[in-house]
Amino acid sequence: MEQLARPESQRVADIGELGLIERLARIVQADAADPFRPSAAGEIAIGDDAAVWSSSVRWQVLTTDALVEGVHFRLDWTDWRALGWKAMAENLSDVAAMGAGPRRAFVTLGLRGETPLADLDELYHGMVEIDSEFGVRIVGGDTVSSPVTFLNISVVGELDGPGLRRGAGRAGDLLAVTGTLGGSAGGLELLQLGTLTSTDADEQDLLARHRRPRPRVREGLLLADVGLRCGMDLSDGILGDVAKLAHASNVGADISWDVLPVYPPLERRFGRRARPLALAGGEDYELLVAGPAALIEEARRALKTADLAPLTVVGQLTASAGGLVRVVDAESRELQSTERSWDHWQL
Amino acid sequence: MEQLARPESQRVADIGELGLIERLARIVQADAADPFRPSAAGEIAIGDDAAVWSSSVRWQVLTTDALVEGVHFRLDWTDWRALGWKAMAENLSDVAAMGAGPRRAFVTLGLRGETPLADLDELYHGMVEIDSEFGVRIVGGDTVSSPVTFLNISVVGELDGPGLRRGAGRAGDLLAVTGTLGGSAGGLELLQLGTLTSTDADEQDLLARHRRPRPRVREGLLLADVGLRCGMDLSDGILGDVAKLAHASNVGADISWDVLPVYPPLERRFGRRARPLALAGGEDYELLVAGPAALIEEARRALKTADLAPLTVVGQLTASAGGLVRVVDAESRELQSTERSWDHWQL
Repeated sequence: MEQLARPESQRVADIGELGLIERLARIVQADAADPFRPSAAGEIAIGDDAAVWSSSVRWQVLTTDALVEGVHFRLDWTDWRALGWKAMAENLSDVAAMGAGPRRAFVTLGLRGETPLADLDELYHGMVEIDSEFGVRIVGGDTVSSPVTFLNISVVGELDGPGLRRGAGRAGDLLAVTGTLGGSAGGLELLQLGTLTSTDADEQDLLARHRRPRPRVREGLLLADVGLRCGMDLSDGILGDVAKLAHASNVGADISWDVLPVYPPLERRFGRRARPLALAGGEDYELLVAGPAALIEEARRALKTADLAPLTVVGQLTASAGGLVRVVDAESRELQSTERSWDHWQL
Repeated sequence: MEQLARPESQRVADIGELGLIERLARIVQADAADPFRPSAAGEIAIGDDAAVWSSSVRWQVLTTDALVEGVHFRLDWTDWRALGWKAMAENLSDVAAMGAGPRRAFVTLGLRGETPLADLDELYHGMVEIDSEFGVRIVGGDTVSSPVTFLNISVVGELDGPGLRRGAGRAGDLLAVTGTLGGSAGGLELLQLGTLTSTDADEQDLLARHRRPRPRVREGLLLADVGLRCGMDLSDGILGDVAKLAHASNVGADISWDVLPVYPPLERRFGRRARPLALAGGEDYELLVAGPAALIEEARRALKTADLAPLTVVGQLTASAGGLVRVVDAESRELQSTERSWDHWQL
C-alpha cells in the first residue's frame, strides 16, 4: 500500500479552490445534507455567482472590516479559533452599533499556500461558534492566494426602525456605555509583557476579553427599541470614540473620569493604571449611546430587566463647538492629560 | 516661507485614516456638498458604523471578490485607474450573472504606506467611472495598512424575480453566450509577450478587453426578464465555466467548436491560435445561459432589439452524468484536446 499524507498535515496549497470551498461550506453548514442546495425559501448560499436572500424588513445594514496579519493580529498572540471569533465579533458589533440585527456574513480570506488546513478549519469553527450564538449564517465570500494572511468579513443586518446613528446626539444628552471598559486593553498589555497564558483568574479574564470580545447585539436592539437614536460601538477607546460621536453630532462632550465602569479584573491586576486603560484602551466593543436623561434611565432599566449588560452614565454632550471632548472630575473640572495618564506612576 | 510638500507627492502614510476616508468619500460623491450627510431618504453612506439602505425589491444579491497584487494583478501591466475599473467590473459581472441589477458597492483596500495618494485617487476614479455608467454607488468599505496591496469589493444588487442560477439547466437546453470570446486572453498574451502598449488597433482592442472588461449588466437583466432561469458569467473560460454550470445542473454539455464567437481582433492577430484562446481563456465576463430553444431565440431577438450584445448558441446540455463536457465539431463528433489546442501549431 502506498503511504498517504495524513489529512491533518495537509495545507491550503494541497487542495484546489473548489476543494477549499467545499471544505469550508461543510463547516459552515454542518447540519445541511447538501451545503450547495438552495434552501426551501429560494435563498442561495455558497456556490453560485452571488448570494441571494429576501428580507421583509425595511432597512438593510452592511458593515465590512479587514484584518491583516502583522498589522491587526499576530498568530503568536492568538490561536486561529479566537481569530475567527474576534474578526466576526468586530463586524457583529458594528451592526449592533446601528441598533440592527446581524443576519448574514460573507468571509474573504487571503491565505498563504503553506497554511495548514487544520488551522483554516479552526478559523471557521471560531466564526461559526459566534455566528451560531447570534443567529448569523455565513453565506458567501472568496478565498484567494496571498503572500500575507488577511481576512475581510462583511455582515449584513436588518434594521426595523430608525436605529442608532453617530450624528444624532444633542447638547445636554447623557452619554452612557454598556458593560465595563478596559478589559481588552489589559489583555493586550499582558500579551505585550509576554503573558500568553496564565493560571491567574484575573489574567485569564483579561486575555479572554482581548481575544474573544462579546458584541452587544441584544443590547443594541433593545437600546434602539426604547427609542434611543444616537450610538456607536467602542473600538478605539471611549476617549477617541466619544470624540467621533461628538464630531458627527456637531457638539462637545464631557467624560466623567470617576464614574467610568472599569473592568474589575483590570483594577485588581493593574491598580491605578486601570482607569487610564479604561479611558484610552481599544477593542472593548461595548456600546456608547447618547440621549435625554429619561430615555437613558428607561434603557438602563430595560437592559436590567432583560438580564443584559448594565448601562452606566459616563458623561454628557455639551454645547462646545468642534467636537471638543473634556475629561472631568466629580466637580466638572477638566482633568489635564497628566492627571489622567499613568506616565508618572509606577506599576 | 517654509517649503511645503507638493500634494501630488504625498503618500498614504502621510495622512491619517480619517483623512484617507474623507479624500475617498469626496471622489465617490463628487456631487454631494457633504459626503457624510445622510440622504433625504434616510440612507447612510460613509462615516457611520455601517451603511444603511432600504429596498422595496424582494431579493437582495451580494457578491464579493478579492484581488491581490502579484497574484491577480501586476502594477507593471495595468494602471491604477484600469485596476479600479476591472476590480469593480468583475463584481458587477457576478451580479449581472444572477439576472440582478447592481446598486451599491463596498470597497476594502489593503495599502502599503508608500502608495502615492495620486495612485489611490486614480484607483477610485476607475471604480467611480464604471459605477456611474451602471448606476452603482460606493457607500462603504474599509481601508487598512498592509504589506501587500489588495482590494476586496462587495456589490449588493436587487433581483425582482427568480433570476439566473447555475443549477437550473436541463438536458436538451441550448447553451448561448453574449458578445465574443477570447479578447481578454489575447490581451493577456500580449502582456506576457511584453506588449504593454501598441499602435496597432487590434492589439489596442485586445489590451483594452483584458484591462477594462465590460460587465453585461443590461444583458443579464433582459435575459432573466424574457424567462431564462439558468446562467452564469464567464470568468475562467467557457470550457471550464460550462463544466461548472453542467455540474451544478447535474447534466453534461457539448460545446460546438466551430460556432464559438471569437473576438475578431483576436482572429486577426492570433490566427489559428484564436479559437483555442476563445475556448480556454478567462476574464471575458460575457454571460453564459442555458434554456429551451424557443426561449433562447426570444432572448436573442430581445437583445438585438435593445441594441445590446448579441447572443450566440454555442452548444447544448446533455444527459451525460457527472458534468461531462465535450467539445464537438459540426457533426457532433468529439474533438480530442490535441485537435483543439494550439500546442502543435506554430504562431
